[in-house]
Amino acid sequence: MNSSSYLVLMHYPTVDRAGKVITSAITALDVHDFSRLARTYGLGGVFVQTNLPKQMELMERLLGHWIGGRGGEANADRKFALECMAFAPTLDDVVAEVSARHGTPPQIAMTSARDVGVIIKSFAETRESLEKSKQPFLLLFGTASGLAPEVVEKCDWVIEPIGTPTDYNHLSVRSAASISVDRLFG
Amino acid sequence: MNSSSYLVLMHYPTVDRAGKVITSAITALDVHDFSRLARTYGLGGVFVQTNLPKQMELMERLLGHWIGGRGGEANADRKFALECMAFAPTLDDVVAEVSARHGTPPQIAMTSARDVGVIIKSFAETRESLEKSKQPFLLLFGTASGLAPEVVEKCDWVIEPIGTPTDYNHLSVRSAASISVDRLFG
Repeated sequence: MNSSSYLVLMHYPTVDRAGKVITSAITALDVHDFSRLARTYGLGGVFVQTNLPKQMELMERLLGHWIGGRGGEANADRKFALECMAFAPTLDDVVAEVSARHGTPPQIAMTSARDVGVIIKSFAETRESLEKSKQPFLLLFGTASGLAPEVVEKCDWVIEPIGTPTDYNHLSVRSAASISVDRLFG
Repeated sequence: MNSSSYLVLMHYPTVDRAGKVITSAITALDVHDFSRLARTYGLGGVFVQTNLPKQMELMERLLGHWIGGRGGEANADRKFALECMAFAPTLDDVVAEVSARHGTPPQIAMTSARDVGVIIKSFAETRESLEKSKQPFLLLFGTASGLAPEVVEKCDWVIEPIGTPTDYNHLSVRSAASISVDRLFG
């Protein structure tokens, strides 16, 4: 199941802290961390989604250093990690690409630190349904203050918040993704 | 046990990919991610260690924005997270500070992606010994290509590598810390 599961790092539509819909900026370090995480757990890959072509161009230029350039020559492990990463302008494009690769459309879930009011499965329940499923799987992560409601509606389910011993739950998207992947695919 | 456990993010002595001892540069995002992680799991705090006073000064200036400045006014959750963070020039200073806070010296462990040849405990064994222990606990993380041998010698034990389904194990320090903390303190 790991090799047919993908991480999708979403930048639009996300919301800011006031709940307004925005496009968040891509953080270069996220792209590295997500790719290294996906390769370490043997996942199918990472999609970095943004609706801004200029952001994609900039990132492709930066990542060219690691994939086709001197960075990749000096650090083959990083090159290998980043080769599992692709850009996509919309979630629908990601769905189309993964459907084409696997011959069947993916199931979609997201994690959320907040209760977003749709069907919720625990990490254990999610793991169990992935083990039984014959479909590929997309795990969405929102940047900024989270995913806009129209993305939530496209999910088959939402994974429970990462339970912790405190009321404070403000993990970075890098931490949340790492913990979620370890719980689901470790 | 969580509130007497500390994360220590080490920048010296670390090694580069050729095994040469270096001081790595502090990554601002690491400081944020580690602080948010420590607060989410109710840990005692985070020590960012570097032997370079100029690096500490620079970081204190940047973090002043979040703790005493406008960033903190706008984002109280981030202010709260970063308030659990302290700088230290050496590991011995961290040990002295934590010993003073708790009236007894800490046990020290590190995680390693490589086999470093000292006593190894699994995550489950580490969790079990922390539950029984009356001492505080330091969990060390190396930046660059890992901690220098002289740091390894100061550890009471090393925690097993984060086992994954692949041979590729090149997680970022942010991912490794997140997964380790979730396994030990979740």
